[in-house]
Amino acid sequence: MRSHQSPRNGDAASVTVMPSPLGLDLSPRPPFQSTLSLQKLRRLNYLALLLRLASFCFSVASAIFMAADYHGPRSASTWYHLDAYRYVFAANAIVSLYSLFELAVSVWEISMNATLLPEVLQVWFDFGHDQVFAYMLMSAGSAGAALSRTLKSPAPATESDICSSRSSFCIQADIAVALGFASFMFLGFSCLLSGFRVACFIIRGSRFHL
Amino acid sequence: MRSHQSPRNGDAASVTVMPSPLGLDLSPRPPFQSTLSLQKLRRLNYLALLLRLASFCFSVASAIFMAADYHGPRSASTWYHLDAYRYVFAANAIVSLYSLFELAVSVWEISMNATLLPEVLQVWFDFGHDQVFAYMLMSAGSAGAALSRTLKSPAPATESDICSSRSSFCIQADIAVALGFASFMFLGFSCLLSGFRVACFIIRGSRFHL
Repeated sequence: MRSHQSPRNGDAASVTVMPSPLGLDLSPRPPFQSTLSLQKLRRLNYLALLLRLASFCFSVASAIFMAADYHGPRSASTWYHLDAYRYVFAANAIVSLYSLFELAVSVWEISMNATLLPEVLQVWFDFGHDQVFAYMLMSAGSAGAALSRTLKSPAPATESDICSSRSSFCIQADIAVALGFASFMFLGFSCLLSGFRVACFIIRGSRFHL
Repeated sequence: MRSHQSPRNGDAASVTVMPSPLGLDLSPRPPFQSTLSLQKLRRLNYLALLLRLASFCFSVASAIFMAADYHGPRSASTWYHLDAYRYVFAANAIVSLYSLFELAVSVWEISMNATLLPEVLQVWFDFGHDQVFAYMLMSAGSAGAALSRTLKSPAPATESDICSSRSSFCIQADIAVALGFASFMFLGFSCLLSGFRVACFIIRGSRFHL
């Protein structure tokens, strides 16, 4: 597990030459890896792709569920008029667009064996966005869940009439929030993976550990 | 900067088993570092201590502010009866206890130049808890903020009477939520630092990069 070899992208260079603090070493060189390392690397890339795909599916589903949550013609209060639900929709819509882009980046990386942007930019871009968007999804999900609880609360003088008059509205909103949490989970794992790539890049000058 | 020596390494055995391909001898030896590396290391440790301290102060303040938020003798509805505020209190109380422990761990590490638990356990313990508690604080803060917005909302049939009858209750709750977000910010930075230590440990067999 703790091999000191890096199969690709010049660990040798990072030791012999004194690289930048960000490990910026973009000089192209022929890949030199063992078959085992290559296999592990490919598996890791496919895992990343799978996590992105799952995150994309759940966030798209969450955004669609929330957007289609219509309270009925009699009431003026739809999901759009409730701040927290609007936040859930916006966060999931943003994350689905980002995941789509990252899916394309992953496919590119697997097929071309190189990053779409320059490596230093790519690893920091992935990690920064994963981190921020994971926190955002968690925040949106929690806000949505808190609003759902308030709407359903039996306390006097709450908005509970929304849920009692048309419970499908509340159930659909709950489903959207739950799907958002599922998307967060996969994005969180992606974030761990991209964080590890950043650390590899800082330490070894290459995004690969294996 | 990227020396392959670890200044102090409780997990030295795991390094000696796996020799480096560059022929570097990683067997345990008395600490050998340049003054620059030592200085940088000390600075990093003090930065971690400072982040823990800030996180502790803000989370304690948030928990106290929330616990002291009393709605008045006439109303039965205090912070304790509102789920999201109870969540804010609980999350901040847990994080303040954890931060206190981590403060002690940091002080121990700086003074003894070794981790309190075995190194492998310590780095994973720190990172795992930082990650989970950072998400928990963000979640609690968002839920609290969502409830605050609902309470203040001018929409008909909300709990807005709580805020109108005794606005200091709502203001104090808002302050507690804001303090929780501040604590989250510092815990988030701690999480980045401890995540980097984990990555260093996986890649190099030591929690030190420098």
